[in-house]
Parts: sequence; C-alpha cells; structure tokens
Amino acid sequence: MNFTLKQIGTIHTPYKNSAPYQPVDTGEDVFFLELFDGYSEGLQDLSMFSYMYLLYYAHRVTQKADMVVSPPWAGGKEVGVFASRSPVRPNPIGLSVVQVKSVAENRVYSSGLDVFDGTPLLDIKPYIKDLDDKPEANYGWLSDLDDMEHLTLHIRGIPHEH
Amino acid sequence: MNFTLKQIGTIHTPYKNSAPYQPVDTGEDVFFLELFDGYSEGLQDLSMFSYMYLLYYAHRVTQKADMVVSPPWAGGKEVGVFASRSPVRPNPIGLSVVQVKSVAENRVYSSGLDVFDGTPLLDIKPYIKDLDDKPEANYGWLSDLDDMEHLTLHIRGIPHEH
Repeated sequence: MNFTLKQIGTIHTPYKNSAPYQPVDTGEDVFFLELFDGYSEGLQDLSMFSYMYLLYYAHRVTQKADMVVSPPWAGGKEVGVFASRSPVRPNPIGLSVVQVKSVAENRVYSSGLDVFDGTPLLDIKPYIKDLDDKPEANYGWLSDLDDMEHLTLHIRGIPHEH
Repeated sequence: MNFTLKQIGTIHTPYKNSAPYQPVDTGEDVFFLELFDGYSEGLQDLSMFSYMYLLYYAHRVTQKADMVVSPPWAGGKEVGVFASRSPVRPNPIGLSVVQVKSVAENRVYSSGLDVFDGTPLLDIKPYIKDLDDKPEANYGWLSDLDDMEHLTLHIRGIPHEH
C-alpha cells in the first residue's frame, strides 16, 4: 500500500552541494525552517520545547535502496539499512533531533543539521523528555568500530583536528 | 509538492479498537513488527541497538488536521499541532522510540507502543546514543499542566492508580 505525503515547508541550511555529517552549529541563524502558508498557527507553543524532531524527504536521493549499506565513515563495515541512518532507504524520510532556537511567524530557527538547503519538510514534533530521551540507549554496532572515540566527536558535532 | 511512501511491513499490537497513551510493557511478545518480503536483510545488526525509532502511517486517522489541537489529557489546553504528538496532523506520520527486544527473520519484537494493530510501518532507524539522547531536553508546555507529575507516569509507562 502507498501513502501520499505533502511538503509543509522547506529546510534552509548553508549546504548547497555537500552536507557534512552532524555539522557543528555555527551560532548564526543559518539553519531554519520556513513553513508554507496555512501552517504557521501550528507552531504555537513549540518555542517552549528545547528540542524538536524534524521529519523531511531526502529529495536529492536518486539511488534505489539496498538492504545492506556501508556508511562512508564505517571503514567498510556492512550493516542492514534499518540499522543505519543512511538517507538511501526504502522510504527516504530523514529524521533529525535539533534545538528549537526561536520561532518567528512562519520560521523556526534551529541548531545545525546535515541536510541540503531546500530539503522538503514533512513534519515537526516536540522532543519530550522521558518519552524521547533514553539515557540507557547504546551505540549498537558503532561500538565495534576502531575509531569509535573519534566518531562520537562527529556524532556530537564537536570540532576537532583529523 | 507531494511524495509517495510505501508500506514496508505491519506493526502488531494488542490494540484492536483503542490504543492507550504510552502503554505499559506487558513483558510478552505481543508488540512486534512484521516486514514484507524483500526487507528482512535490512534488519542485519539492528539487534545490537537497545532502542530504535519506528515511523508509521496513522492509517486510522480520518479527520482533517487542525493547526491548533487540544490533547485529551491536557485539561482543555490548546497548543499548535507541531507542538503536539497528536496523530491528526498535516502528514499523519507517527514516531515512537521503543526497545529492540529481538530480531527473528522478518520480525522485530519491541517494547510497547500506542498504535493500533495493523498500523503500516514506513521505516525503522537505530536510536543512537549522543545523536538522539538529549539529557537536557525539557517538557515544553507540559510543565505548566496541573497534573504534570501524574502525566509523566503515563509518559514513562509506569503503572499507577488513578
């Protein structure tokens, strides 16, 4: 069965042609969502949350999804697509957790995220402590990587020398 | 612009006609995902993660989304739909964080989630510590509710008397 989703707005980022993994937040207002007409009222009270989920359509993906993928930073390791965050997946829906910086009319300013400028926004959901924050979560197969310590710097967006 | 998504499997739960908010985990294998043919290989290594995200299509929703909603347990408070987890939203995509209990062929057994039996599954993503776990997250407007303490029992799925 198929389902049709509609674009509700656009994600703006500085990444025109290449998006880094989990970019460092620049501190400027360069990451923001711009909602289409008719959706602004739905942003009421969103600014009271420190974090939100963004769901978006990875519109630049053109490849067909493989069931086994090899993330570029994983040293050749192959894992199932559902054990990866690869954008090349059966349904190319992206999910990011970002900070809610401010809400102004139809715009929501956020911390950095690794998507291309112009990415179609599908949904915004509040990230709710207890419901979404799982302190006992783990790193799965990433723990087995040789450079796990270095990798977590990328995951957490901490600047570092290579 | 519209996008087409496809069902990759089905979510099985005990909830045929009513789904509680954040149900208590029964401990039995009654919550599981069943993937369609051709997707099982994508589950490789998923069992190494303690938590996963499920994305699903809230197929029982028939109402048109309002931009302002009043969650049933929020004592009449009205909030923007994007500051809520209401399934009645512009794109009725549901998102849940659940435990990965076990993976067997095309099935993934999980902790409890509040969706109807038969809900179409769209995606599974690993929940990765640091990337998705935000200890400094807050409760947003939920903090203002009179019975916040009671509500967090529901959010965390802790059994209690009413």
